[in-house]
Amino acid sequence: MSEAALKALGEAIRTRRGEIEGLSQEGLADLAGMHRTYVSEIERGLRNPSFRNLFKLAAALEIPLSDLVAQAERASASS
Amino acid sequence: MSEAALKALGEAIRTRRGEIEGLSQEGLADLAGMHRTYVSEIERGLRNPSFRNLFKLAAALEIPLSDLVAQAERASASS
Repeated sequence: MSEAALKALGEAIRTRRGEIEGLSQEGLADLAGMHRTYVSEIERGLRNPSFRNLFKLAAALEIPLSDLVAQAERASASS
Repeated sequence: MSEAALKALGEAIRTRRGEIEGLSQEGLADLAGMHRTYVSEIERGLRNPSFRNLFKLAAALEIPLSDLVAQAERASASS
């Protein structure tokens, strides 16, 4: 279950990034103070990020982290 | 900001645990498959837990993780 949630969380992050025109993985990584590879792996659900890093990503994406988590919960519950 | 959010998240977890009659830190730790000390440190905001561990804690507390995160956001925004 938490694996599906990690994947769904990554997808929610990627989707939100896509809503911000021209925001690449590299751009998001720069905003959040992370490496692009790390962001790429989070978006694919291959990492188990910490609360602090998720909080930074959500801030960079200008969305409450709870919204991203709620999206992940909905997606992983229905998959 | 993420430090205040970690502290507020820990408080949200502790508050939710208190709503479940008789659920000690040790009981929650057992339910989530963690050590009691780790749960205690999370509740005090001294740890930066992973998404997977937060997801397990929320499941053990029978509450969506997004609810705990939303509480933490509200509390840390107003502090």
